[in-house]
Amino acid sequence: MLLLIPGPVTTRPEVRQAMTQDHAPWDNAFRPLYASVRERVLAIAGGVPGTHASLALQGCGHFATEAAVRTFVPPGGRILIPATGSYADRMARLAREAGRVVVPLTVAQTEPVSPAVVAAALAADPTISHVGLVYSETSSGVIHDAIAIGEAVRAAGRRLILDAVSAFGALPLDISAQPEMDVAVFTTNKCLEGLPGLSFAVARVDSLTGAVGNAGSWSFDLADIYAHALRSGWGSFRFTPPAQVLAAFQTALDFFDVEGGQAARLARYTANARTLYDGMLSLGLEPCLARDVQGPIVMNVHAPSDPAWSLQAFVDALKEAGFVISNFYNTEYPSFRVGCIGAVTPGDMQRFISAVDQVLVRLGIKNRSASRQAA
Amino acid sequence: MLLLIPGPVTTRPEVRQAMTQDHAPWDNAFRPLYASVRERVLAIAGGVPGTHASLALQGCGHFATEAAVRTFVPPGGRILIPATGSYADRMARLAREAGRVVVPLTVAQTEPVSPAVVAAALAADPTISHVGLVYSETSSGVIHDAIAIGEAVRAAGRRLILDAVSAFGALPLDISAQPEMDVAVFTTNKCLEGLPGLSFAVARVDSLTGAVGNAGSWSFDLADIYAHALRSGWGSFRFTPPAQVLAAFQTALDFFDVEGGQAARLARYTANARTLYDGMLSLGLEPCLARDVQGPIVMNVHAPSDPAWSLQAFVDALKEAGFVISNFYNTEYPSFRVGCIGAVTPGDMQRFISAVDQVLVRLGIKNRSASRQAA
Repeated sequence: MLLLIPGPVTTRPEVRQAMTQDHAPWDNAFRPLYASVRERVLAIAGGVPGTHASLALQGCGHFATEAAVRTFVPPGGRILIPATGSYADRMARLAREAGRVVVPLTVAQTEPVSPAVVAAALAADPTISHVGLVYSETSSGVIHDAIAIGEAVRAAGRRLILDAVSAFGALPLDISAQPEMDVAVFTTNKCLEGLPGLSFAVARVDSLTGAVGNAGSWSFDLADIYAHALRSGWGSFRFTPPAQVLAAFQTALDFFDVEGGQAARLARYTANARTLYDGMLSLGLEPCLARDVQGPIVMNVHAPSDPAWSLQAFVDALKEAGFVISNFYNTEYPSFRVGCIGAVTPGDMQRFISAVDQVLVRLGIKNRSASRQAA
Repeated sequence: MLLLIPGPVTTRPEVRQAMTQDHAPWDNAFRPLYASVRERVLAIAGGVPGTHASLALQGCGHFATEAAVRTFVPPGGRILIPATGSYADRMARLAREAGRVVVPLTVAQTEPVSPAVVAAALAADPTISHVGLVYSETSSGVIHDAIAIGEAVRAAGRRLILDAVSAFGALPLDISAQPEMDVAVFTTNKCLEGLPGLSFAVARVDSLTGAVGNAGSWSFDLADIYAHALRSGWGSFRFTPPAQVLAAFQTALDFFDVEGGQAARLARYTANARTLYDGMLSLGLEPCLARDVQGPIVMNVHAPSDPAWSLQAFVDALKEAGFVISNFYNTEYPSFRVGCIGAVTPGDMQRFISAVDQVLVRLGIKNRSASRQAA
């Protein structure tokens, strides 16, 4: 069974097998594991020890996003969040409920955010201290240009918080080259092909030391996680970690390195997405995005307009064929969603395309043209 | 290798093996797993569907404790926390950093909190809305009487938040019989013998519906987790769960049931602790607590006063013999700490006692009498 969802992804059996040991998280045998994972993650982000720190947080990507906003945007502070889709909406809700003021910026969801639009919004409101950007917007599949948006943020003298949850490990990130970036957050279970349960932040040390007292939550205080590391060592968690998830992540990072790191992973995912895009077209199905804005992480495909179409029946039939896709969609129009990430290859995508064809026939879907009736 | 620490505990291989599958958390194949785990956990807590709800939260026990305090104590509200040890201190810090007012109550750490003392503190301050109690205080090993303290709280017309992290599954809990209890929190990786990465709250539904808007954190809003369950079904997580940890937890609950549930687990842990207590005495070592207050979860033993004593050397030598104990202590005097919980038996404890004896000889520890010099 292959998961073709935008995370948790299909993992290698060796990665899952690395979860089958008990671990005592504060034991001297476990600490080097955590310390080395921190170093490796920092390097993937382009961080420089001393200037940047990698910090692990128990839980999911939303937790890391909330922690980032709480830590770097002071209580009552203002953050501009381009409304790129569901995940930007989620960052906005996390920020608002934490008592930060979200300045909305309406943008088209089918193309990358314009740096000029961000620059104009910042120029219009000098009280905004931060911009929160979703690097890979899962709901649309669009990749936003973290470098170009970062340049606009930097030129305006503001700070950037990057939600790299669905991007990190596949899309390039060099936090050293983007001094406006306080923090990038991500998880173990997306493009790094580990299991879910642990999230990470890579942050600037000067931003962390300047953020003491902001968070209003001990659990979500990245400044305190940093202070704890200084005090107790880089192998020490503050609270009980998901130790098996971390052990599996170490193995996942080994495979990441063997594959050739971020560039190789991006190349594979890009090939997956291209294969899928071509394959959908070849079946008479229509991806929701134009090819030039379709990112390599996740693809939405218009639901066929045939009255026999049922997303759940389609999902169930594909599962019988060995593929799990999402049983919901986030687009304005009915669609189905396929992840291009995880331990899957263009060959897997070809098999998936064949399965889709057979399933559509079996379900009696004759009209494969795009349904554009709003749900 | 056996973990004799107060969690994460030694688990059964079948439990760990249950982590070796990929899961799509919103797929219809996964939802029944989560829904059934919720039901089983609710039943263990004595909860009644409709009156109580079980809610899962990604992450560790501290996260569930923070979520409980945020959800049920309104911002600026006052919570009385008997200072039973490190875990009470942690609940206090979580509450304070979340903007709640902690009313301190100094108590002896070597005996259970007196209900009369709690009653007097509540009578003296009618602005206190909640009491936060640690059921099993890991730093001391003392079990606090959740029922008796609850009666005092109830008589005073206040509410109880129970940190049952190190207790749940072994110590009795019947939330139906304690209407003053808004919530009890716990994790997968202590007395239920699962793996770490997921925490739970069992809460009153009327308390949850009355707490909407309190949390000041979307991630940690138990009222929102409840609302999500009503809206999306009991098998649906809001955010990505640690799916493998949940799957392992299901298997752990199967073993819990086969063993005979909470009463049987308490009996085994009690036998473990009794064996350990007797064994330490037989070796000339001295447990830190009197026998009548020593709980069945974790035991602190005075460090030998021999100048050759080194906790780390002791820990390292025990590890060579197949046992992992904590490499730190939380008591006022030097001690070592041994967990009595997890998939271990009195026979394992006997083997451990023999190992301790041999290790002390090997390390040249001649004087085993208690060191009571404050560190």
